[in-house]
Order: sequence, then C-alpha cells, then structure tokens
Amino acid sequence: MDKIKVGIIGAGGYGGCGAIEQLINHPHAEIRALIDKQDTGKPVSELYPHLTGFCDLPLMAPDDPNCPDDFQVVFFSTPDGVGQKIAPSWLDKGIKVVDYSGDFRFNDIDTYKGYANRIERHQDHASPHLLGRSVYGLAELHRKEISSTSLVGNPGCFAVSCILGLSPAVKEKLISYKSIICDAKTGVSGAGKTPNPAFHYPARYESMNAYKISGHQHVYEIERELGVLAGQDIKITFTPHVVPLCRGILTTIYAQLCEGQDIGKVEEAYRSFYKNDMFVRVFGPEKPQASVNVRGSNFCNISLNVDERTGTLIIVSLVDNLVKGQAGSAVQNMNIMFGLEETEGLMHPGIYP
Amino acid sequence: MDKIKVGIIGAGGYGGCGAIEQLINHPHAEIRALIDKQDTGKPVSELYPHLTGFCDLPLMAPDDPNCPDDFQVVFFSTPDGVGQKIAPSWLDKGIKVVDYSGDFRFNDIDTYKGYANRIERHQDHASPHLLGRSVYGLAELHRKEISSTSLVGNPGCFAVSCILGLSPAVKEKLISYKSIICDAKTGVSGAGKTPNPAFHYPARYESMNAYKISGHQHVYEIERELGVLAGQDIKITFTPHVVPLCRGILTTIYAQLCEGQDIGKVEEAYRSFYKNDMFVRVFGPEKPQASVNVRGSNFCNISLNVDERTGTLIIVSLVDNLVKGQAGSAVQNMNIMFGLEETEGLMHPGIYP
Amino acid sequence: MDKIKVGIIGAGGYGGCGAIEQLINHPHAEIRALIDKQDTGKPVSELYPHLTGFCDLPLMAPDDPNCPDDFQVVFFSTPDGVGQKIAPSWLDKGIKVVDYSGDFRFNDIDTYKGYANRIERHQDHASPHLLGRSVYGLAELHRKEISSTSLVGNPGCFAVSCILGLSPAVKEKLISYKSIICDAKTGVSGAGKTPNPAFHYPARYESMNAYKISGHQHVYEIERELGVLAGQDIKITFTPHVVPLCRGILTTIYAQLCEGQDIGKVEEAYRSFYKNDMFVRVFGPEKPQASVNVRGSNFCNISLNVDERTGTLIIVSLVDNLVKGQAGSAVQNMNIMFGLEETEGLMHPGIYP
Amino acid sequence: MDKIKVGIIGAGGYGGCGAIEQLINHPHAEIRALIDKQDTGKPVSELYPHLTGFCDLPLMAPDDPNCPDDFQVVFFSTPDGVGQKIAPSWLDKGIKVVDYSGDFRFNDIDTYKGYANRIERHQDHASPHLLGRSVYGLAELHRKEISSTSLVGNPGCFAVSCILGLSPAVKEKLISYKSIICDAKTGVSGAGKTPNPAFHYPARYESMNAYKISGHQHVYEIERELGVLAGQDIKITFTPHVVPLCRGILTTIYAQLCEGQDIGKVEEAYRSFYKNDMFVRVFGPEKPQASVNVRGSNFCNISLNVDERTGTLIIVSLVDNLVKGQAGSAVQNMNIMFGLEETEGLMHPGIYP
Repeated sequence: MDKIKVGIIGAGGYGGCGAIEQLINHPHAEIRALIDKQDTGKPVSELYPHLTGFCDLPLMAPDDPNCPDDFQVVFFSTPDGVGQKIAPSWLDKGIKVVDYSGDFRFNDIDTYKGYANRIERHQDHASPHLLGRSVYGLAELHRKEISSTSLVGNPGCFAVSCILGLSPAVKEKLISYKSIICDAKTGVSGAGKTPNPAFHYPARYESMNAYKISGHQHVYEIERELGVLAGQDIKITFTPHVVPLCRGILTTIYAQLCEGQDIGKVEEAYRSFYKNDMFVRVFGPEKPQASVNVRGSNFCNISLNVDERTGTLIIVSLVDNLVKGQAGSAVQNMNIMFGLEETEGLMHPGIYP
Repeated sequence: MDKIKVGIIGAGGYGGCGAIEQLINHPHAEIRALIDKQDTGKPVSELYPHLTGFCDLPLMAPDDPNCPDDFQVVFFSTPDGVGQKIAPSWLDKGIKVVDYSGDFRFNDIDTYKGYANRIERHQDHASPHLLGRSVYGLAELHRKEISSTSLVGNPGCFAVSCILGLSPAVKEKLISYKSIICDAKTGVSGAGKTPNPAFHYPARYESMNAYKISGHQHVYEIERELGVLAGQDIKITFTPHVVPLCRGILTTIYAQLCEGQDIGKVEEAYRSFYKNDMFVRVFGPEKPQASVNVRGSNFCNISLNVDERTGTLIIVSLVDNLVKGQAGSAVQNMNIMFGLEETEGLMHPGIYP
Repeated sequence: MDKIKVGIIGAGGYGGCGAIEQLINHPHAEIRALIDKQDTGKPVSELYPHLTGFCDLPLMAPDDPNCPDDFQVVFFSTPDGVGQKIAPSWLDKGIKVVDYSGDFRFNDIDTYKGYANRIERHQDHASPHLLGRSVYGLAELHRKEISSTSLVGNPGCFAVSCILGLSPAVKEKLISYKSIICDAKTGVSGAGKTPNPAFHYPARYESMNAYKISGHQHVYEIERELGVLAGQDIKITFTPHVVPLCRGILTTIYAQLCEGQDIGKVEEAYRSFYKNDMFVRVFGPEKPQASVNVRGSNFCNISLNVDERTGTLIIVSLVDNLVKGQAGSAVQNMNIMFGLEETEGLMHPGIYP
Repeated sequence: MDKIKVGIIGAGGYGGCGAIEQLINHPHAEIRALIDKQDTGKPVSELYPHLTGFCDLPLMAPDDPNCPDDFQVVFFSTPDGVGQKIAPSWLDKGIKVVDYSGDFRFNDIDTYKGYANRIERHQDHASPHLLGRSVYGLAELHRKEISSTSLVGNPGCFAVSCILGLSPAVKEKLISYKSIICDAKTGVSGAGKTPNPAFHYPARYESMNAYKISGHQHVYEIERELGVLAGQDIKITFTPHVVPLCRGILTTIYAQLCEGQDIGKVEEAYRSFYKNDMFVRVFGPEKPQASVNVRGSNFCNISLNVDERTGTLIIVSLVDNLVKGQAGSAVQNMNIMFGLEETEGLMHPGIYP
C-alpha cells in the first residue's frame, strides 16, 4: 500500500512538531509538505533541531505556488478561526481534514457560539455549512463516525482528559449529574510555543496558579459530550491550573456517587466501557497514577477512588496534552479515517525519566 | 528588653532551617541552641551553607549534658510522636512550647485518635493530660487563646490553607456545608528533607500526582475548626497533589453558594473577617493569584470567584508551606505568646523571581 | 539621620524589583519614586505581587511632571545606552548615580568601544566626559574610590563572578596570565523579564546551551580589572552557558598554577586578600559549593582546588546574579557612597530550600 | 531471522529501563528476561509504569531457578564490580556481554587500577584474564573490533561526550595536547535512580555545583582513547558539574589551536572524521547547540568554535547521558556485534518540548 500523503498546516508550532514526531516512523503515512506563515523557507529541523535527519522539509507559505497539494489528509495545527476559513478548499479537492482547534468540534452554530464567546477575537463561523458533517475526534466515543467522515474536529486537551475520565460514570449513571467538578492541572506546553510573560522561565519555574476560573472554553465540548451520554443537559464546574512542568494534564474529577454504587462497581463499569480501547488504561485506588506515566505517549490513564466519608467518586485522569491531547489523537483519527489499525505509529511508551 | 531565648528541637530539618531563617533577624528573639539526633556536632551552616555567618551553632544531641536549657520557648520541629513525649519536661520548667506536629492540635483524645489513625506508626498519645490546655496555633482564629497558653500545636500546612480559605464562608453561612471540596496542590518541600524515591529529582521534575486520596490526616483539624465556626459537624472531601516546585500550597476550594449570595457579598464577608489580620490578603476574581506571590513570606493570599453557571464558590488559597504553613506561623505564635507585635521578624516579602 | 531618598529608573524590571527588595527593610534608605516607561500608573506590586503592602508605589513615566525628583541617589536599572543619556541631568542636580549597565564601567572612550561593539545596537557614548570620573562598582576592589565618587558603573553579573574569583591569583601572580579560561553557567533570570523564545518555559526547563561563544561583552571589564591587578594586559577565554534554574552564576575558572605554588599557598593568598570583605567567603577543596548557597544573598562564595595531575588551579566562583551580580552590589555601592556601613540592609542569608 | 534474545541484569535501574525502551520496538531483538536483586517478582512496569503493556516482564532474582538463560546477549546494567564477577559464567556459555560499568573498559590491569582507585569500594579485578579480549564500546572509534568481540565495555557517559568531541582534533593534531580542558555539565539522571540528599528535588531544583574536581574516574578512559589517537600520552583537566535538568551532558572543551589551523580546517576535519557515523552531527559556530537537541536520542551533536582573541578551539559536545551515554550505545554495540544495521531500533529523534 502506498503511504498516505499528509500535509500539515501550522507546522511550525508545538502541534505541528508533535504530528511530525508521530508520523516520521509511521509505517503507512508520510509527510508531504509543511505549511506555515512564519519561518517560511527554513527547514523545520532548524526550529526543532532534534528532527535533524528525520524531517528536514522546509516550512512553506500557504500561498507558495511550489507547495505540493497532492495530500490525502491535511492537519490544521492552527488556532481557532483558521481551519474554518481554509478547510473548505481542501475538502473540495477530496482531501480529508483533521483540525486541532475548536472550529469543527460543534455540529451547529449555536453551540459553537457558546464556545466562541469564550475565546479571544471570536467571530462568526466562516463555514457553518460544514458543522453538520464534522465529527468530534475522540475515538473512544466516536470511532465509527470518524471512520466515515472527511472532517474531524480534534478535541481540546482538557476535554480529552475530562471526557474520558467521566464517560463511563455518566453513561452508566454512577454519579449525580449536578455535582461534577473538574479540577485540571496542566503543564506549560499546552500554551504553545509563543513566549508570554506568564510562561517566561523565571516567572514560571516556581509558581502555580488557577486561571480562567469558571470561564474556560473547553467546558462546552465536555458538557456536550457528557450530555449526549447522559441523555440530558449537564453543567460542570471546571477550573484549569498551570503548574511548572512541560507535558501533562492531570484532572481530578469529583462527583457524588449514586446510592448503591461502590468502588468495585465503578471499576467494573470503567473496565467494561473501555475494554476495546487500547489507549485507555483503568486503575483502581491501589496506586495513584503520575502524569509522567503518560508523558510522550498516546495513553490516557484513569484511576478510580471513592471517599467513603463523603460518598464522593474521585477520578484522576491523565493525558499528555501534546499527544493524546493533540497530535496523537490527530494521528489516531487519521488511522481510523483511512481504515488503518488505530494504533499504527502510536505504540510507543514515551521516555523515562 | 532582653531577647527571648529560643531552643529548636529537630533543628536539622527544613522546619528547623525555616525557624532559623525567621529568627536570625528577629529584633526580640535569639536562638540559644539547636538540638537534633542527627548530624550532632556539625554547625547547622554545614547542613545549610546559606546560613554561614548568620547561624553557625552546632547541632547538639538531646541528651548532651552541655546543651543549654535556659530557654523561654522551645520549638519542636519534629515528627508526630516526639513532642508528646518530651514537651512535658520543658513545660514543667516553665518553658513555653510550640510543636509543629499533630501532637497538640487536638484537645481530646478521641479526635486525636481520628488523626493518629491516618498517620504511619501511630500510637497512644503519651501526654493526654496536656491536650486540654494546648491551643491550635492558627493566629487568625485563636489569637486570644494563644496569647495566654504555654503550649501551641502549630497547624498542618494544608490545614492553614484550607481553614483560612474557608473560615469566613463557613462562619457567615455563605455556602452549603455538605458540598465542600478542597483540591490542594503542594510543592515538594512539604515532604521534608529526607530523600525518597518519589521526590528524587529525575522522578519528580516532570511529574505530578494525587496521593492519599480521601485519606490525608490534615482533614481532621480542618473539619474540627470548620465545625466550631459552623456550630455543627462538617465533613469535607480533601485531595492533596504534589507538583514539581519547591515551595507553595495552592488549594482550590469548591462549595455551593447559598441562595441570595453573590461575589460582592462574599468579598465583603472575607474582607471583614480578616480586617485585623496582617498576613491574610483577600482578592476578588479580577486577577488570579500565583503561589510565587507568597513564596518565602508569611502571607496567605485568598482569591474569590463565583461560577455563575453552577452556583459554585471557588476559592483559591495560597500559602508558603514552609512559612505560613510551618515556621512562620510558629514565630507568629511565639510573638503572640510573649506579647510582642504579631508581625515581629516576619515582615518581609520573600524574593522574586 | 534622615533616610536617603532613592529613585529607581527602570524600576519595572528584575533589576528594579531586586533593588526594591533590598531597600524596603534598609534602615537608612527609602524609595522615593519608581520610574519606568512601561506599565506607568500601575503600582509596582501589581507587577510583583509579593511586594503588596511593602512597596505599592506606582511606576511613573520619566517625563511625568508629578514625579518627585528630590532624590539623593538614582539607580539606573536600564539597558546599555540609557544612563549615558540621562544621568548627566541628575548628576547636575547633585544627585548621585549608580548605573547597572555598561555605560559607566569604563574610564575612556576606547575601552568603552571595545565593549560597545559586542552589544546590540551600539552607538557612540552620549556622555564621554563622564567616563573619567565614573568608578567601577566592585566594592572589594574599589571601595575607596566608590566612597568619593558620585557616579558608579555597577559591574556585570558575570564580571563579578570572574573578577572576584581571579583577583587574588592575578594580584599575587599565582597563575600564568596566558592560560585563563572562565566557563560560566548562569540561571535564566540574568536575561531579564522580557519573554523570549529561548527562555520560554517548555524550551528551557530541560535544556542547557553555550551562547556568545568567544563573544560576550563582559570579557572587557574582566580583562581591564585583571590587567590593572597584574600590571600588564591580560586576555581570557570566556564562555557563558544558560542552564535551567532561575538565580545563580557558577563560574569554573581554569589557569596554570605557577611553579612553587600549591593549594595551601593559594588558600592563604585568597583569605588574606578578602580578609576585610564581608561578602566574600573563601573555601578550600574539601567541599564543593553549590549555587543555592548564595541564592537571594549578596555573598560571593569562592572554592579553591588544584588538579595536581595537570598543575591547574580550578576556582569555582558563585554569586546570585540578581543580588551580588546586580541590585545587591548597587545597594552596597550606595552604602559606601553615603558613608554607611557597607553591609546595611544586605545582611540576610536568602532562603532555603 | 529470529530475534536476538536479550537478558538484562540490573534491569530495575535507569540503565535497564533505557535498554527496555530501546529494545521494545527493535525489529530484530526481544527481551527474554529481566534480572535484578531488588523488587524481584514485580513486573518492571510497576517500577516504570509508562512501560505498561509494552514490557510487563517480572524482575527475577539472579539465582532464580526459573529464570531463563537462553540469551544470545546479556546487558550488565550494574555498578562497577558486578560484571567482572558474573560475566565469565555467561561468556562461557557462548553468550555475548555488554557491560555498562568500568569493569571492561580497560585492557590491562594497570590502567584498570588507575580507574578503580577513583571509585568507591574499589577492589582487585575479579576477571583480569578477560581484560585482554574486551573492547571499548564506542562504535565511532572501535566499530570493527566490536563486530568481532563477545565482550564490550560500554563507555562512561562523560567519556562519550569528551572523546567524540576531541577525537578528530587529537587525531589530526589540530590542537596542543597539553592544553585540554573539559568542563562537563550533566543532568541528574546520570546519578541513577537511588535517592540521595544531593538529588532530592528541593535541594536540586534551583542549584548547580561542581563535584569530584580533578578526581572523576572517567578521565582515565578519555585519556587512554585520546592517547591512542595521538600516539602519545595525554593528560586532561576534567571537571564535572550537576545542573538541574534530567537528561543531557554538555561538555565545553577548550584547547589551544595549533599554528596554521582555523575554523574552516577544523570543521572539515570533523566532518571528514565522522562522515560514516550516523549518530554524530557536526555543526559550525553559527548556531549553538542545546542539550535538548539530543534528548531521548542516540545522537551526539558537536559544535565547533574558535576564539580568535586567544587562539582557543572551543568544542561543545552534547549527548543524552542515558542514550548515547549508556543504553543507546549498548544497543548500538549489540547491533554491531550481531551484524545488524548499526542504527536498528535507534532511529528516533526523541521528543520536544
């Protein structure tokens, strides 16, 4: 079989770098071109020198007439608002699209607006007609729809952690839907590669903080997915925090356990729910999981605990924000869209320490 | 006025080092002797070379016949179980005691047992007769009792963060008492100076994890203090996490806001509650506070937020675990016990960056 | 005695913050005004929240007509090129000046040019007539001249580390002058507070690199000072490195030991040279010194070693780049200029861990 | 072709973990058993949870009768003194051995003693008869001998960095042999996984220091290899430093450039010397290399610079101490010993950021 030809738009950012890392040893895909508005003409290995000899393709301007366009799939590793403008021209040529931003995570204009109101410089959606055919790219919930779509909205990094952490509990009605609190801690890489006073090394190495308290945009896709599973509207409280490490999201999820439930039933429900999901690992309370356990890999580790004093289910859900939370999920979605083994190119454990 | 003569037991640990740092420039106190079972004979500045020239006293064995004992106050910077055995002999000589551990945080043997069951190697309390006269050393709640006692149980570091974060809300009945969740993130220094696989640099620099989920011993003193303020029993859900930084506890506290409350009333209640407390700073939702804002200082920063979508009060409470969470509170208590200005020796902002 | 009134220009940067930290508890100085071109109108404690309650003065524009000017000394915590333009107007009013940049580190225009050619956007010196009266602000070498000048060029952070590490060896002719190599490692705070791709947390937390190899501008003031001590021209090889920590410069200095020298004589020479210098601590080879030993304090720790296999003197010289390498030296110089105890306000050990 | 069966002794340490990471996706090798004295019975994925699902083999005691022994090669990831005692029994069965320690890096007992005198608890070599047939496992210098030996002494991590950095300059007589100084900075993982006060997170996160000044044991293998290339004895000055990061060695090498040499000739010599070495990348002075460029990969990056003011060649040599400095070199050596492509299993770039 010929290798799938992949184009990456926004290739110069961490999301592009992550896709390159996942694709260079992928047996059935190859990177055909790297597109970006910045650093055009430079080999990507000048920006990311660890790629030297592995991927030395130059970054090409989006309007460069020499830029190849014979892709079978394009990754948009771009901020909100870019994919919705440009994806249609690629889709029209029969090229599949995986978009990292929130542009195609919602299937109607109203829920998109709830999301868009939370982000900076929001605007009217440029391609509302595409929303109905886009699929939310969380393979564990939407594998089948992903396999037959040409347009995937890759999930937000916090959302992956929260939705995978909560889905079995919500689907199986183990918890009170009114009581859900997600306390998320993220490494700094989630903010991307653009320097910023809050992520300047001296300002960050010994500091942690909450931010966007009760106002983070990822809450909408979490509530939408949970609502579908529950068959009713769900509202959650979600607080993100930044802590001084690079990779990893640890979300501690609290919810009231329903009458008659206990840790044994909860574990059983989770193991059953994820029994066919290679990238989800379920653990009981015996050993707390650390973010480093998923660093650099496409896994989501979920550990389950019950505080019997208060009847609270406490779920710790871990992903690497740049892999399962971004580029890894994108490649996983690509694999599904092209009928490959879902795990192709992704079966590596990361490095330790 | 002559300077207060201070003895520090367990002086070789981080808690002893912290007390020395707070005391070397204290205008009305002086360190008379440093006592420890390890590293005896070595100047403390060999263990902590930054103290060279500031405090070069040797560590002396507890049973060293040459060890001075003409103290006016002794700090027990020792693990659970030490102070309860040795403090009586000092108290009998008329010497005041501040104990860092849980030994004297509880006023009766039953609540102590609830706590002790959670810690390793627990045992029967060695001096139960002293529990009735010990005072819980959180100055903001017990200033008056501290001023007239000779025995203070210094609060746990997480407890300082949670109790200061919650006291006004509980006292003024702003929140539902059944819904309180404390999600705490601590730096590594809280675990002390003894090396441990979990705090080995390569294992920790890029990892975060929850631990003792629903089982941390500090929950008892938090519930006791909140219960007194509420006039009824309160149970909370408390989950500690370790993140890769050195100093700081950030606790994110969630509780259902009562009917009729709003952010304005909450802010007003907090400012009023703490209006005479120099070391508590109250902030509204406008600017999230970072742990570095209290690093190296005796302050507790509290920021208040309401998630209007879910009616949740979200409080972020910050302390430096080694200062307000330990040695700073100890010196603050000493100041109060001796009728000094409460802030003496403690009015410094820490360093940045 | 009335307190010395201090104005700080460029107060919003790390150098300004450092000066504020050293001055807020200084018994004989007070900050009168904070001047900056950025963030004007904001209290400095909004930029540096740990200062809340300690220094809440607003940043004022340099041309703000309401800005006080009744200073006795002005600190220029500004980049190269600023002080040389503006200092004259303050000096003319009889106000003393301490400039952090290279503007007044050289006493004639030719050596200044050697320096200026190495920095970005260099230019002709705006006040060449002042060079002759400026004094290089390294108190250990120039205490007397500093006491009688009104214009001090505060030394570069690397230069402090190298010059203090080498002065006795050069002065006492312990080493071959042709063989000196300075391998310097600095924390990230030396680069200031402006975000930069190289100091973005994810890019820096797990990376170290050399930079400006054979081209750093501080080499000129090091060579000038050493040349004066040697009575002949000296050229050194100097390589700076950035490593992922915040505060600290560790310079490892290599030079061929002269015939007849040994570690004992070297130690004796160093102890003798620095016998009246409170802020220099000399150590033999028995215990390597770590950068954290001087973190947050105005000390320079020097450890001396001889590699007998190759006859090489190996000196490890440590400073906190933001204190002895910048704001601490500035306050030390101010104390000397005003006839105060040199250590006033500076006798604190920093914090650990 | 059947896969090579690999046994790993000392599998529970970082060196064992590194070998597992390199081997789990190796197309022509498979791990047959993991042997260790500690944690026996536990799956290695309990110690290193990122390996879950990739390698869940248990650690088996060396004397466990159920332990497989049908290996074709055994890696000794053990401290000095272990391999020399146990390797003979494996070699006698016709099994090849790669030993990570210094036990087989020297070919005669006298040079071994020079090394052994520098390490703790040194002893007489237990298998001196094997020294004559062991090969120093730095493939770039000894590829041919490695291909025909059954016993490889894997090089020390610092030695890899220094020898690769210096070999062309020494071989081609570009530098004065008397003037070589190696200033090495290492991440903390080089010290292994055993907790230690110096590597406790709070003690290390913000500290750097030199250690074993003029006394590190790796100097002997460096001098031996350089001596062979030079055809004469060479003595170097070598100073190791620990800095607060996990992976990476950056060695800055200084030497006097010989008359008639310049940067162009140096670059040419280096490129020529390494033209057939896939894992060595040579760079000129245009862009300083950072340790993160080789993190997690088997590459050595060398950048070349000349300080024309002093005639000094300044070489910056970078490796990941756990890969090219340890397990990666071991796998590279295994590949060569079995006639495989040298790069098999090792062609991955690491991860960034």
